Amino acid sequence: MQTPILEDVLARLRTALEHDDLPTAVAIIAALRPPDQAELFAELTDKDQVALLPQLNPADSADILEELDNQDAADLVGALPIDAVVRIVDQMEPDEAADLLGDIPPARAQAVLDSLEDPDEVRPLLLHQDDSAGGLMTSEYLALRRRMTAAEAIAAIRAWHPEANAAYYLFVVDAHGRLCGVVSLRQLIVADPATPIAEFMDSDVISVPAGTDQEECARLMTRYDLLALPVVDASGILLGVITVDDVVDVLEEETTEDFQRQGGAQPLDRPYLDTGVFTVARKRIGWLAILFVTESLTGTVLRHFENELQAAVALSFFVPLLIGTGGNAGSQTTSTIIRALAVGDIDLGDALRALWHELRAGLLLGLGLAVAAYVRALTWGSSQALALTVSLTIFTIVVWANGLGSVLPLLAARLHIDPAIVSGPVMSTLVDATGLFIYFTIAQVMLGL
Amino acid sequence: MQTPILEDVLARLRTALEHDDLPTAVAIIAALRPPDQAELFAELTDKDQVALLPQLNPADSADILEELDNQDAADLVGALPIDAVVRIVDQMEPDEAADLLGDIPPARAQAVLDSLEDPDEVRPLLLHQDDSAGGLMTSEYLALRRRMTAAEAIAAIRAWHPEANAAYYLFVVDAHGRLCGVVSLRQLIVADPATPIAEFMDSDVISVPAGTDQEECARLMTRYDLLALPVVDASGILLGVITVDDVVDVLEEETTEDFQRQGGAQPLDRPYLDTGVFTVARKRIGWLAILFVTESLTGTVLRHFENELQAAVALSFFVPLLIGTGGNAGSQTTSTIIRALAVGDIDLGDALRALWHELRAGLLLGLGLAVAAYVRALTWGSSQALALTVSLTIFTIVVWANGLGSVLPLLAARLHIDPAIVSGPVMSTLVDATGLFIYFTIAQVMLGL
Repeated sequence: MQTPILEDVLARLRTALEHDDLPTAVAIIAALRPPDQAELFAELTDKDQVALLPQLNPADSADILEELDNQDAADLVGALPIDAVVRIVDQMEPDEAADLLGDIPPARAQAVLDSLEDPDEVRPLLLHQDDSAGGLMTSEYLALRRRMTAAEAIAAIRAWHPEANAAYYLFVVDAHGRLCGVVSLRQLIVADPATPIAEFMDSDVISVPAGTDQEECARLMTRYDLLALPVVDASGILLGVITVDDVVDVLEEETTEDFQRQGGAQPLDRPYLDTGVFTVARKRIGWLAILFVTESLTGTVLRHFENELQAAVALSFFVPLLIGTGGNAGSQTTSTIIRALAVGDIDLGDALRALWHELRAGLLLGLGLAVAAYVRALTWGSSQALALTVSLTIFTIVVWANGLGSVLPLLAARLHIDPAIVSGPVMSTLVDATGLFIYFTIAQVMLGL
Repeated sequence: MQTPILEDVLARLRTALEHDDLPTAVAIIAALRPPDQAELFAELTDKDQVALLPQLNPADSADILEELDNQDAADLVGALPIDAVVRIVDQMEPDEAADLLGDIPPARAQAVLDSLEDPDEVRPLLLHQDDSAGGLMTSEYLALRRRMTAAEAIAAIRAWHPEANAAYYLFVVDAHGRLCGVVSLRQLIVADPATPIAEFMDSDVISVPAGTDQEECARLMTRYDLLALPVVDASGILLGVITVDDVVDVLEEETTEDFQRQGGAQPLDRPYLDTGVFTVARKRIGWLAILFVTESLTGTVLRHFENELQAAVALSFFVPLLIGTGGNAGSQTTSTIIRALAVGDIDLGDALRALWHELRAGLLLGLGLAVAAYVRALTWGSSQALALTVSLTIFTIVVWANGLGSVLPLLAARLHIDPAIVSGPVMSTLVDATGLFIYFTIAQVMLGL
């Protein structure tokens, strides 16, 4: 969310640009921190962005491109002259540079790559999928040798003069480049300067192969509080390092996907307002159509009980209330279970415990609502028999919805489907048709229809 | 989620404990990393936990207590002798120790505090709310003075010998203890040893007052990629430092709360299976009851149109389909909008743009579903007029649900209510009653009832 202060800065920036006063605009941007620079920059028109970016300090431009949404950054880079792009990309972290080059037309990417100061830092990163460990890692790291002393290591760091904030963990390799340990900057400083690294490094280092999914990398780094995660090839040779800032973005992205699935829509790939209306509709129509077809089962059930409905039209007054409440109880259960699975509070082995937990919670909730429904039905002037029918139905539906809501996400997880797919809408749709069947079956018995 | 390997380790651990072989159990735990130690430990019975914890290396025990759920840790500490507790708490990070002492009975907390090696590190932290910056911060940090040289600072760090991974940023204070800058360990190493810190420190340092909400701290650290955030009092005096590992936990907690609200339930305070069935039911019954009362409006609407229902019982076949689809479309919209608000893709100033975006998406989705509903109604043998009624209704309901779904979360945010409150269940319930009204109004006109 914008802070009021940023809004003021934006107003000043726009005024400067309206008067074609580029030096003032550049000064306004330069005074900000990178995330704020990117936020303001994203608010400008495409024309202003293209005019302003090459005028900024290339390091600032690089920061802005790194923070912008991928597609926006690629579009912007497409509108700039090659030499301006090269100056900026030279200042980007290698992993971000590779992501950007992967998003622009190959011929243009090749032209930029050929003119970079150090293309070999970026080139190997282009081989990996964006959403794998190889796509997340940076090649800007310093690998130390086991026989170096602490003092030699510190001298090497001083000579390397890292610009990135990637230098908190230093990885140690053997003569073949195979990862064999990790030391922190803190350990290097605290150690006796003459001690070889091998004597105080931690040789139990967590690493991942380049093909590892980004979500698994984020999970490992969160679980073990890692600030950096080394990436290795099949023979253990160190290829690169994933830093914690990249993983924070991955976690946010994955959570957004889960949220949108939970609402019964396919995840969007871009920020909301940048996503066209047609794309928004396309991402939703699939689920909406599947749910529509499933939901139309309710019509089949109602037609099946047409005679009962004709005989007692009052039965239909309670239909939305009963199935709606069942859907709500089911949504409450799935959202709890899906999140508990995501944070590791439960796993597949806990399926029966979760079911038992939810059935008992459903009994309590169902009892409470049954009393409320009985009173509500009587105050609407329903007969004792109808009030009892409604009351018994809501109890049964809530228990059923809680059971279904606990089992389905776990079943999805067992089938290696994302459990977030059992969203609120999916639950209410399933409960609607089955709930009606429960309702009319109870009504037949209780009312003798 | 457990990995298969941890399950094997757990089996070995349980066997050792069954044979009262504590030394083997201790060795099994000691070989693991802290998060794995805590996960296995949490699977043991209370009796085994109480027997095992004092036998472990106090540093391992401290790590385990830090990783355990707060209430579990407090219960466990309540069952151990005071001297065992003191040995363990001495090894905890001060912020975690303060959290633990805040969760146990005050007399016992005081007894532990009095016997600690360095009670003054913990005592000031007890004054702050758990969910504020003051509650998150640790007092274990090294404040440097401006006139120190790089070499003197490195010597000070070596003498301090920090155990925590908190030493990546070092904060600089003036003679009154007021925060005036930050240097990274990397800058210290790279700088010429004789340069005073004041010459290369970054004096534009982001800090927060002790009362700042933990969510705001997490937002700042994520936005500016900070590994540590200094906490100051009203006169700018440095009180403590929040480290990135604490903030990752905060983010996970807040996301879990949003997820549970999104499913229409109050957030749980503890891991799912540790939460009793009565608590689970209590956290859900409030919303379920509010939604039940709101949903019972559908009955009022249906009773209002009783004559129309008597005249054309076929109208009722479409009720769940129409209102269910409207609820689904509304849930899709709210989940997108709520998440876009949470990650900052939109803010309150974008309300009209979001509404316009959703109305157009609703037009597209409504058109598609209207065609499907028309065909479906005809294949069920409905009249042309009824099929047109159903088709026009679904179009109107979807547009209405999309509009409502975009406006309500933004309205909640404007009223300083968590927008996640406009959950899927709330949306479907609101759309149910209003949707029925739309349906029967269109039916009256189209069918001349």
